[in-house]
Amino acid sequence: MPSIAPTPSPDIAALATDLRAAGAQTDAAGLAEILGRIAAGPRTYPARAWHRLIAADLSDALAERLDAAVEALRPGEPKADPTRLDRLRAALAEAGVDGFILPRADEHMGEYIPAPAERLSWLTGFTGSAGVVLVLPEVAVIFVDGRYTLQVAQQVDTGRWSVEHVIRTPPADYVRKHLAGRRLGFDPKLHSINAAKRLADAAGESGGSLVPLETNPIDALWADRPAAPLGPVEVLPTTLTGLDAAAKRERIAADLATRGIDATVLNQPESIAWLLNLRGADVPYTPLPLAYATMDRTGMVELFLDEAKCTADVRTALGNGVTLRPFEAVGAALDALGAAGSTVAIDPDAATEWMRGRLDAAGATVVLGEDPCILPRARKNAVELAGTRAAHTRDAAAMARFLKWIDDTGTGTTELGASDALEGFRSQVANWRGPSFPSISGAGSDGAIVHYRVTPETDRPLEDGSLYLIDSGAQYLDGTTDITRTVAVGRPTPEMRERFTLVLKGHIAIATARFPTGTTGGQLDALARQFLWRAGLDFDHGTGHGVGVFLGVHEGPQRISSASRVPIEASMILSNEPGYYKPGAYGIRIENLLIAVEAPAQEDNGRAMLCFETITFAPIDRRLVDPALMTEEEIAWLDRYHAEVRRRVSPALDAAHREWLEDATAPLGGG
Amino acid sequence: MPSIAPTPSPDIAALATDLRAAGAQTDAAGLAEILGRIAAGPRTYPARAWHRLIAADLSDALAERLDAAVEALRPGEPKADPTRLDRLRAALAEAGVDGFILPRADEHMGEYIPAPAERLSWLTGFTGSAGVVLVLPEVAVIFVDGRYTLQVAQQVDTGRWSVEHVIRTPPADYVRKHLAGRRLGFDPKLHSINAAKRLADAAGESGGSLVPLETNPIDALWADRPAAPLGPVEVLPTTLTGLDAAAKRERIAADLATRGIDATVLNQPESIAWLLNLRGADVPYTPLPLAYATMDRTGMVELFLDEAKCTADVRTALGNGVTLRPFEAVGAALDALGAAGSTVAIDPDAATEWMRGRLDAAGATVVLGEDPCILPRARKNAVELAGTRAAHTRDAAAMARFLKWIDDTGTGTTELGASDALEGFRSQVANWRGPSFPSISGAGSDGAIVHYRVTPETDRPLEDGSLYLIDSGAQYLDGTTDITRTVAVGRPTPEMRERFTLVLKGHIAIATARFPTGTTGGQLDALARQFLWRAGLDFDHGTGHGVGVFLGVHEGPQRISSASRVPIEASMILSNEPGYYKPGAYGIRIENLLIAVEAPAQEDNGRAMLCFETITFAPIDRRLVDPALMTEEEIAWLDRYHAEVRRRVSPALDAAHREWLEDATAPLGGG
Repeated sequence: MPSIAPTPSPDIAALATDLRAAGAQTDAAGLAEILGRIAAGPRTYPARAWHRLIAADLSDALAERLDAAVEALRPGEPKADPTRLDRLRAALAEAGVDGFILPRADEHMGEYIPAPAERLSWLTGFTGSAGVVLVLPEVAVIFVDGRYTLQVAQQVDTGRWSVEHVIRTPPADYVRKHLAGRRLGFDPKLHSINAAKRLADAAGESGGSLVPLETNPIDALWADRPAAPLGPVEVLPTTLTGLDAAAKRERIAADLATRGIDATVLNQPESIAWLLNLRGADVPYTPLPLAYATMDRTGMVELFLDEAKCTADVRTALGNGVTLRPFEAVGAALDALGAAGSTVAIDPDAATEWMRGRLDAAGATVVLGEDPCILPRARKNAVELAGTRAAHTRDAAAMARFLKWIDDTGTGTTELGASDALEGFRSQVANWRGPSFPSISGAGSDGAIVHYRVTPETDRPLEDGSLYLIDSGAQYLDGTTDITRTVAVGRPTPEMRERFTLVLKGHIAIATARFPTGTTGGQLDALARQFLWRAGLDFDHGTGHGVGVFLGVHEGPQRISSASRVPIEASMILSNEPGYYKPGAYGIRIENLLIAVEAPAQEDNGRAMLCFETITFAPIDRRLVDPALMTEEEIAWLDRYHAEVRRRVSPALDAAHREWLEDATAPLGGG
Repeated sequence: MPSIAPTPSPDIAALATDLRAAGAQTDAAGLAEILGRIAAGPRTYPARAWHRLIAADLSDALAERLDAAVEALRPGEPKADPTRLDRLRAALAEAGVDGFILPRADEHMGEYIPAPAERLSWLTGFTGSAGVVLVLPEVAVIFVDGRYTLQVAQQVDTGRWSVEHVIRTPPADYVRKHLAGRRLGFDPKLHSINAAKRLADAAGESGGSLVPLETNPIDALWADRPAAPLGPVEVLPTTLTGLDAAAKRERIAADLATRGIDATVLNQPESIAWLLNLRGADVPYTPLPLAYATMDRTGMVELFLDEAKCTADVRTALGNGVTLRPFEAVGAALDALGAAGSTVAIDPDAATEWMRGRLDAAGATVVLGEDPCILPRARKNAVELAGTRAAHTRDAAAMARFLKWIDDTGTGTTELGASDALEGFRSQVANWRGPSFPSISGAGSDGAIVHYRVTPETDRPLEDGSLYLIDSGAQYLDGTTDITRTVAVGRPTPEMRERFTLVLKGHIAIATARFPTGTTGGQLDALARQFLWRAGLDFDHGTGHGVGVFLGVHEGPQRISSASRVPIEASMILSNEPGYYKPGAYGIRIENLLIAVEAPAQEDNGRAMLCFETITFAPIDRRLVDPALMTEEEIAWLDRYHAEVRRRVSPALDAAHREWLEDATAPLGGG
């Protein structure tokens, strides 16, 4: 994407001069561009990680001046502008289409997207993490899911925008009914192949058509569109990844060769990061560099990534098998694959319709199939598992400090105060690289909102006699954490204790499950719900998702969900997070991460079985547990779990925290 | 299918004369045909039900002469004949194809098939209930599943036939690899649309083709091919069906009209039997008439069924909306639908490739979709549910007599002796219409064979210190039963008791499950396995299947199986039959039937939940239950269940049986 180079201010020119004197290579214009891109991008961890893109060593004084220059350039709050919709309609007419459909998405089908990809937010004012807009001459519709029904009404001018529920009225259904034979424009870089096919079919059924636009009309209208991010790239050593990139490339290439494929194109930065042992800082929460890659059947990779994000040692570390190319050169590379008559595999959910169309037009034979990195990435190796176990043990000490702090502070803090405090405790932990997702810090009825995100406007104090739910996680250089605890503030009601205990029983059923190899998460999901179901209760989210190692906190293909058809395999990481939500009252969720492991053989029963190793260690609030509702085995599990929390976490704590932990993890059997 | 009219013997000619004198309309040739078709068909229940096709009332003497004449015509054991394969190969060469693929199937994709459809058995000698053969010039292959590995080796000349495992090497994969560009013949009347597509794709990938044959080459070679069955048809009153056929037709027709469909073609006799409230006796175990039907969007039905199966009152009862047509006229009816340019819906799994091809060639627009009778049939009405509950209570008395008899007889009987005894007890029950499937009567290690079918050769006595497994069921005019009990013969081992108890815990988990509407059998399946899984054990079949009402003992779409994606709905009937099988040692299965019902509302929890009502009532062997492995709730469920068995069954028993039942159903809590 184009980057914007502001005219350097006198301050920046002076700073550039001083930096050059200290050994940096940058001139005033270059420095201005770097600072603009850093300011538009996410914060980096450590905060000064990006300084190394300017010079290897800087004096404290220069470093402070760099930081101040970036802060001065940080963009302000976006402002709503009702003329944008009118201007878009005019641009569409000019482009010769009757309408436009735009998802909240970037060119990599990512969960977290960079600032210049926030086109939907620019157009509508809506800042939620998922949505689609459809603009036609007579109507402008925004489709959101149940999480965002309230938010969209606050942020969007509902006089100009109609709101639809994206599940009840999927955009494709709406197109089928309302396009009425017209031409619907779309940006093929922002839709996966499968998603574009669904829309094209729907447009066709209405008698109309889905028309790819060469450029996104919003990009021309968006005057102050943020610059592309400039997150510094790092190459992880095999002491962290367990396998060097050459070995990974060889393995994936052998798989391609077996399938008669000449090359694959990787669009998801998570896959590229895993394959090449790279990390980056271009989007919040997931440490990945925005990039494309192609790999041929011999394992040679072309990596399309802005070289300005790489220091010289990164370029060296990439090695012989990986050629660094300009980010924008990916289109020409697709053309070249086509010109060579290659058979090219791409993932219809991960790659974009733009890639498919360009390969096809250039003469390639396109084979659709799952991104070949997905399964190997999901099967963690022993080094990755050791790393993530260590990261979880360190994270657990921060959680213990936080949970004691909550107990001590009680109604003396708010949702924001609490999540800031937790981030403060975590920032002291070795190898911390920031949060792995936006914390869900919900007091009282806010806890009943499954994906609640506290803002200064919604912030509220913890109240006596309520529950407080905190779902949070961190990125560490050696692992990614994701944990939810629900704690009593003051005295809980009997109903709160009963329902917490039902959730806990489901959590324990998953934690202690044994199951044959080949079992899917779809088969296991009901084990977590059975006790709630008996009470006429349920929760409206999956029981667990896959988790990466210093990568995405949500990664597939495995998950524990009724919809999952993917066998759980040994060494996969999953969350175990049943919950219960009473709207307007309180929310309960208990989440630990698990590693699927081979179960020890039992006598001569012979079946190859898997079970789970829980790797998250923080007290589960005993004040919310009603032992009368639990079996002896369930009580024994909780007591064993708490003993393990003590064993692992106590050594990192001072006496006061150790005493608190003793109490918080005392056996129920004796309680 | 063509029927064979043998030259009438002098006895039959004399019998015909006497029957005419008694008022029957048949001549000698007609009688000979009827007797031949009855002899080739399954036994009817009551045994003389077919007499009504000859005359309404017959003297005992004439009835006995009819029965004797049929017995004299019963076909003998089939003989293996190695020349059949050679003759088939010659016929294929003449037909201009290189090979032939033949499933064990009839023209209606039925589970139980009539004698003239046993082509695979005629060709190979294999009598199992599932299999496929593929004949090529250089190889002849028979594909069977794991149930039949031993049997196929005994019945088939493995010098001439190679055996493949149908799951590990699916026929389509074999075709893909070995057809090598040649022409593979098939009978399009014996393959569903989906099955034919898979084969055609595989043949195409090999560079060859799948070629439909006008007539099945085996039918010309099979000199003494049995006649088509002549099971008498009956029309059930609404006191049994709860809804008259006109109302059912109206409902299905309205659904077709909504979907823009002009007509549907029904190929599965189960659907036709349900839609028109007909029953028949053309195949064993399922009381259905072999028939085709078409229905238009106004609800008018053409029923293609041999009129000789119907007495005058059946023809009257069909009413105005249903036109009876010759069975063979279905092809012309498909042509007529095509000539009218109709849009015709057929089920790609239930209808044959022959139907699709003929409709298509005639000019119809073929829409593939689920048979519109399947879901309405699965949702039983109140009358059907009341009927099946009553049938189950009567069946339970026969089971109680049988289980006491087994306890009394012990090692004094064999597998065949026991299953015959059970059929004897059931035959005394009101409205009995025969077994609903071949009993699985397995002593000791035979119980470990999931689909074991005892023969005089494999029959063995019950042994002391072993388990005996009996899976059986009956058709009654008002319901269909299917029950499995496992009983201790002598003193069971601690391992047997432990594993029986784990199976029982799974059975109870399903019996007591509550779950939200929309939950599929795929989600529930693991609840039945969780306790076995913890011990490193499992069972290799689904937990439950759908069951009809005086119709198929296996009917869809609902089932409790990891593969099921169909929501369980209120009023569906399912089996609950977890098991455990120790090869070479013993088998355990505990099976009851369930009705899914709306769960009573709980306080204000608000979710619409379903639960199960168990409708099978027979003691579960307390000698095999280890209460130490059970929770209080599980013990309470078993005690409640046994109390209900006593309450329902005792009134039908004499004092000795009541005493036995008291003991067999005594509370575990007090035991």
